[in-house]
Amino acid sequence: MSPKVTVLLVIFSLHCHITLASDPDPVQDFCIPNTRSGTVRTTQFDILPCKNSIKVTPEDFVFSGIKSPGNFSDTGLSVVPVNPTNFPGLNTLGMSLVRADLKVGAINAPHFHPRATEIAYVVQGRVYSGFVDSANRVFAKVIEKGEVMVFPRGLVHFQMNVGKLPATIFGSFNSQNPGNHKIASAIFGSGINDELLEKAFGMNAKQIGMMRRRFIPKSRVRS
Amino acid sequence: MSPKVTVLLVIFSLHCHITLASDPDPVQDFCIPNTRSGTVRTTQFDILPCKNSIKVTPEDFVFSGIKSPGNFSDTGLSVVPVNPTNFPGLNTLGMSLVRADLKVGAINAPHFHPRATEIAYVVQGRVYSGFVDSANRVFAKVIEKGEVMVFPRGLVHFQMNVGKLPATIFGSFNSQNPGNHKIASAIFGSGINDELLEKAFGMNAKQIGMMRRRFIPKSRVRS
Amino acid sequence: MSPKVTVLLVIFSLHCHITLASDPDPVQDFCIPNTRSGTVRTTQFDILPCKNSIKVTPEDFVFSGIKSPGNFSDTGLSVVPVNPTNFPGLNTLGMSLVRADLKVGAINAPHFHPRATEIAYVVQGRVYSGFVDSANRVFAKVIEKGEVMVFPRGLVHFQMNVGKLPATIFGSFNSQNPGNHKIASAIFGSGINDELLEKAFGMNAKQIGMMRRRFIPKSRVRS
Amino acid sequence: MSPKVTVLLVIFSLHCHITLASDPDPVQDFCIPNTRSGTVRTTQFDILPCKNSIKVTPEDFVFSGIKSPGNFSDTGLSVVPVNPTNFPGLNTLGMSLVRADLKVGAINAPHFHPRATEIAYVVQGRVYSGFVDSANRVFAKVIEKGEVMVFPRGLVHFQMNVGKLPATIFGSFNSQNPGNHKIASAIFGSGINDELLEKAFGMNAKQIGMMRRRFIPKSRVRS
Amino acid sequence: MSPKVTVLLVIFSLHCHITLASDPDPVQDFCIPNTRSGTVRTTQFDILPCKNSIKVTPEDFVFSGIKSPGNFSDTGLSVVPVNPTNFPGLNTLGMSLVRADLKVGAINAPHFHPRATEIAYVVQGRVYSGFVDSANRVFAKVIEKGEVMVFPRGLVHFQMNVGKLPATIFGSFNSQNPGNHKIASAIFGSGINDELLEKAFGMNAKQIGMMRRRFIPKSRVRS
Amino acid sequence: MSPKVTVLLVIFSLHCHITLASDPDPVQDFCIPNTRSGTVRTTQFDILPCKNSIKVTPEDFVFSGIKSPGNFSDTGLSVVPVNPTNFPGLNTLGMSLVRADLKVGAINAPHFHPRATEIAYVVQGRVYSGFVDSANRVFAKVIEKGEVMVFPRGLVHFQMNVGKLPATIFGSFNSQNPGNHKIASAIFGSGINDELLEKAFGMNAKQIGMMRRRFIPKSRVRS
Repeated sequence: MSPKVTVLLVIFSLHCHITLASDPDPVQDFCIPNTRSGTVRTTQFDILPCKNSIKVTPEDFVFSGIKSPGNFSDTGLSVVPVNPTNFPGLNTLGMSLVRADLKVGAINAPHFHPRATEIAYVVQGRVYSGFVDSANRVFAKVIEKGEVMVFPRGLVHFQMNVGKLPATIFGSFNSQNPGNHKIASAIFGSGINDELLEKAFGMNAKQIGMMRRRFIPKSRVRS
Repeated sequence: MSPKVTVLLVIFSLHCHITLASDPDPVQDFCIPNTRSGTVRTTQFDILPCKNSIKVTPEDFVFSGIKSPGNFSDTGLSVVPVNPTNFPGLNTLGMSLVRADLKVGAINAPHFHPRATEIAYVVQGRVYSGFVDSANRVFAKVIEKGEVMVFPRGLVHFQMNVGKLPATIFGSFNSQNPGNHKIASAIFGSGINDELLEKAFGMNAKQIGMMRRRFIPKSRVRS
Repeated sequence: MSPKVTVLLVIFSLHCHITLASDPDPVQDFCIPNTRSGTVRTTQFDILPCKNSIKVTPEDFVFSGIKSPGNFSDTGLSVVPVNPTNFPGLNTLGMSLVRADLKVGAINAPHFHPRATEIAYVVQGRVYSGFVDSANRVFAKVIEKGEVMVFPRGLVHFQMNVGKLPATIFGSFNSQNPGNHKIASAIFGSGINDELLEKAFGMNAKQIGMMRRRFIPKSRVRS
Repeated sequence: MSPKVTVLLVIFSLHCHITLASDPDPVQDFCIPNTRSGTVRTTQFDILPCKNSIKVTPEDFVFSGIKSPGNFSDTGLSVVPVNPTNFPGLNTLGMSLVRADLKVGAINAPHFHPRATEIAYVVQGRVYSGFVDSANRVFAKVIEKGEVMVFPRGLVHFQMNVGKLPATIFGSFNSQNPGNHKIASAIFGSGINDELLEKAFGMNAKQIGMMRRRFIPKSRVRS
Repeated sequence: MSPKVTVLLVIFSLHCHITLASDPDPVQDFCIPNTRSGTVRTTQFDILPCKNSIKVTPEDFVFSGIKSPGNFSDTGLSVVPVNPTNFPGLNTLGMSLVRADLKVGAINAPHFHPRATEIAYVVQGRVYSGFVDSANRVFAKVIEKGEVMVFPRGLVHFQMNVGKLPATIFGSFNSQNPGNHKIASAIFGSGINDELLEKAFGMNAKQIGMMRRRFIPKSRVRS
Repeated sequence: MSPKVTVLLVIFSLHCHITLASDPDPVQDFCIPNTRSGTVRTTQFDILPCKNSIKVTPEDFVFSGIKSPGNFSDTGLSVVPVNPTNFPGLNTLGMSLVRADLKVGAINAPHFHPRATEIAYVVQGRVYSGFVDSANRVFAKVIEKGEVMVFPRGLVHFQMNVGKLPATIFGSFNSQNPGNHKIASAIFGSGINDELLEKAFGMNAKQIGMMRRRFIPKSRVRS
C-alpha cells in the first residue's frame, strides 16, 4: 500500500473511533460489532459498525468465558467483566455482566459504577456485602448461595468473603459500560494535590505518602 | 370510622394507584415502597410512596426467595419473577430478575418481554435456548452450566431442557417490569376473531377451535 | 482507481454502516441522510452522515409515495412502510408511518412493533381492529372512516377488513424504526426446534410440518 | 359529609393533581386514567391513577371525535387536538394527534410544538405548508391529498389552504402533550414590556399598541 | 496525493459528518473530540471521534474564553455561546453555557431554545428578564447581581438591561446543543409566504415588507 | 378534627410522599410544587402536585438566596445547594445549581454527583480544581475568575482555594437532584466493616479507628 494511502487509512481509523454516547433503547434487533482484527482497534467505548446480519450466528449471543474464575490478584480477588468488548452480542442492548470470585477472606474493595445498578447473585459462598447511601449509612448483610443483593446506581459498595469456602458472584448491570471507580485508587493512586488530600482526610504528609505508595500503579511511579 | 370517612379512604386509595410510566434513571438513591399491608393494595404497576429512609434496612435490598425452585407447572416449568412487588429494593432502579427451572424435557414456550433485554445465566443443566429476529431467523444453541445467552429486547425467545438433569436459569432484565407475552396464549387463548385467526394461520375452524380449548384459561371458559 | 484504494473504499464503506442505537431526542433541527447512490449502500439501520444543510430542500421533508396503495399480496394486503430509508426527512426525528390497504375480507395478521406505539387512522373502510394485552385479553372493535385506534407499544395487534369496500389505514409510530414481528412467521417460519414447537402449541409433528411449509419462505426452503 | 371531611377532600384533591413529568417509555401495557367526573378535576397535565384493568374496554382505545371538523374560528380554521384528556387510551403511550380543517384561504398561523415532532397527512385539499429552521431558512411547499410533511420538533411551522376546496389535515405527534405555542399571541398578546418589543421588532409604540389590541385576549383586556 | 485518493478523502470527510442525535447519558467518562485542524471541518452538530484518552489534558476541561465580553452588535448585545465546538470538554456531557453582555438599555430579543432549560445567573447589572408560557402569560421580573432565573425548555424568553451599568449574564443549559430560535428573524427574516404573514399578524403588504427589510440578512437579500 | 380524620390525614400524608423517579424531559411548561406549609412535609425527593398555574408568579422562577455566601464550616467551606426544595421553579426542569465559597486555603473535599455533570464558573478567586477519571488519572488545574471547568457526571472531583482572597464558585447541574457523595465520610464515616476497610486501605485497626473518629458524625457516635 502506498504511503499516502496508508496515511489515509490511519486518519480514517482515528476518525472512526466514534464513541457511543449512551445506553439508549435499541432501534434495531441487535448490532454485532464488526471487529475484524487488524483493521480497527477495538476499545470498549467505540461505536463499531454492525456486522452484516447475514453473518451473525447464534454464537454471537452466547458467552462461555465465565465458566471458571479469571486470574486472581494477590489479595485473592478475581473479576471478569463481560461487555461488548469480549461478548459482542451485548452491543447496544443496555446490559453487561461480571463474574467475581473471592478466596476465603478476600475483599472486593469499595467501588462504584457510575452508570448502572448492579444485581449480584451469589453462585456459591457466603459474602458480607453492602453499600453506602448518600446519607453515609451502610446497608450491609451476609448473603449466601442463591441470594440476591441490589446495589443502586452510583452508590459505593463492597464485598468480603466471610465464609469458609471460595465465593462466586454473578453480577448483571443495566448498562453495557457501567464503569468501575475504585475509591482507594481514585483518591490515593491518582495524583491529587497532597495538601488537598491532607486536609480532606486529616492525615499528615507522611501518612499521605504511605497511601500513595500503596495505590499508585508501579508503572506510573517509575515513569 | 364513620361511613363517610371510609368512603373517602376508598376514593383516596383508588387515586393513589398512580402508575409508574417509565424505567427512567433514578434521581434518588433508592425508593423502598411503603407497603404496609391493610392500607394500600399493591400491584406491580403502582408507584408507591417511598418508605421513610430512616426505616429502610439492609434486608430491603436482599432477596432470598429464589434459593430453591418455585411451583412447577404440569409441563415441568417453574418460573419465579422477582420485581418490586416481591423485592421492594428493586423499585425505581431499572432492573428485575427471574429464576426459571425446567425438568428434563420441559420447555419455556415462545414468549417475549416488550420492555427489557434479558441476560440468561445457566446455573445448572443443559438448555436449548434461542430467539427469533425480525427477519424470522432463529439464533439458537445448547448452552450449559456457567454460560450466558442474551435475548435482545422485544424478540421472541424460548428454552428447552435437553440435558439429563433438571436445569436452572437465572435471568436478569434491564427494566423493573419487563412484561411477559406468551405467544400461544396471546394468539389462541385471548379471543381474537376466529375468521381472522383462520386466515392468519391457514387453519380451519375446527383446528382453531382445538387451539382455543388448549389455551383459553379454564376460569374464563367457564364464565 | 487502483485496487488498493478500492479495497480501502470498501473497508470504509463497511465501517460507516454504523447503526443508530436509539430514538432519542434530536439535538439538531434535522439530519437528512447523505445517500448518494453508488457510494454507500443504505439500510434502514445505518446512521448516515447528514447532508450539508445548504443542500437540504423542502422536498426532503415531504413524502408523496403513499397517495395510492402499494403492491397487494395474494391475500389482499398492501403495506407501505415509510421510514428514513424512503423518506429521509424522518431521520433522527423519532417518528415513522405506514399506509396499509386491505381488500374486502383481507387481514393484517397478528404482529407487533417492539419499538413503537401505533396510532391507526381509518382513511376509508370498516376494519375489525384490535390488540392483546399481557393478560391475554383482546381489545377489538370495528372502526370506520375517520376513527382512530391506538395500539400500545409491543402488544400483538391485527386488523381485518369487514366492510364491503377496500379499506385504507394511515398509521404513525413514535419511532423511526418501529420493527414489525409477524407472529406466524416468527414461530412457524423461522426454524425453531420441532420438539419445542410441538410442546409449546400442543401439535403433533405432522401439524407442525404443515405450519412450517406454510410460513417458511420459499427462498429459504430451496436453499 | 362533615365540614372537616370536606376540607380534607379538597386538600386531597389538590395534592393529587400530580403532574406527569415526561413522555417516557411505558412500563405497563397501558393506563386508562380513572376520571370519574365529580371527584377529581382532570387537566391535561395530571397523572391520574389507572383504571382497574378489568374495567378497561375496547372503546377506551378508539376515538371517534374527529370524523368531522370541529368549530371554525372567524378566520376559517378548526383545530381539534386529541390527547389523553379526550382520548384516555393515549395516556402514557407517548403519542397524540390532531385534526385541522382550513377553509379556502385560511391559515394555521406560525406556531411550534416544544415537545414533539409532527407528521402531517393531507386527508383532502391543497396546503402550502412549511417550517423555519434555526438558520432562519424556510422549507415550504404545496402538498396535497395523500402527501405527508414532517415538522421537526420545536421548529416554527405554518399552513395555508391554497386550494379551491376545504382542506383537512391529520397530524400525529410523538408526545402525549406536544404543546402549542402560537408566535403572534406569545409575543404580542402576552404582555411583554413595550420598550423591549419596540426594540425587538423595530416598531414604534403605536404599532406595538395595535399589535397588542389584535392579539391580547379580550377577556384579559377587560379585566 | 493522487486525484483519486483526494476524491476518496473528500467522500470520507463528508461521510464522517455524522450528527449527534441526542443528549443522552454518557457511557464513557468523557469524549474530547479529535479536531485536528485541516483534516475534518468541525461543525456544532458533528459527532467526532474521541481523542485518545492518553492525549487528553486538564486544559480540555477548562474554558477561559468568557472572561471578558464578546463582540457587541449594533444594538449593544454580545452573546458568546460555549459548546463542544469551542469547549471540546463538554462533548457528550449534556451541558453547555453562554455569556451574554447587554449595554445599558440593550435587549436580548425574544427567542427560545428548543432543546434545553436555561439557568441564568446575573454576574452584574439589573436585567428585566422573563418568559412566556403556553397560555401566553408573561413571567417577568427585574433581577440583579447574584440572582438566578430559570427559563423552562422551549419557552420564549427575553432580557433587557434596565440598570445604569452594563449587565453580564452567565447562562447554563442542560443540552450540549440547546438551539437558539430568534422569533423576529424566524418569522420576518426567513421568507415565509407574504400572504400567510399578512393573515397571521394582521399586517398589510407594506408593513410586512418593512419587517422583511429589517430582518432578512443583507447577505441573503443581495443574492 | 376528630381523631379518626386525623389518622386519615396522616396516612394520606405518608402516601403522597411519592418520589420522583427521574429527570426526564418535561411534558408541561413547568410545575411549581404546591408546598403549603403545615400540610405536607416537603423533602427533596417528593413529587408534589403542581400549584394551580393561575397562582404561579414570576417570583416562582427567580432565586435570590445566593447573593451572599451561606454559613461556613470550621474548615472554611460554605456550600448552598439550590434545587426544588428551596427554588420551586426548578421542579421537573432537569437542572439545579450551587454556590460554593472557600476561604483562603479551604478545600471542597473529594466528592461526586452520581446523577449530574457540573459546570463550575469561578465568580471570584483562584481555585485548584480537578477530577479523577476511571483510569485513576487526575485532570486538575488552577482556574480563576471568569473561567469554567466541567466535571463529568459521576467522577470524583475536588477544589482548593489557592489564591490570596476568598473564592466563590457558581455551579450548575443537569439534574434537579444531582446527589453529593463525600468520599471520606462515605468510607470512614458510614460504618463499613473494620476488617474490610483495613484490607481495602492497607491500614491497621488503630488507623481505621482514627479515621472513623474523624468522620463519623458526632450525633451518631453518641447514640
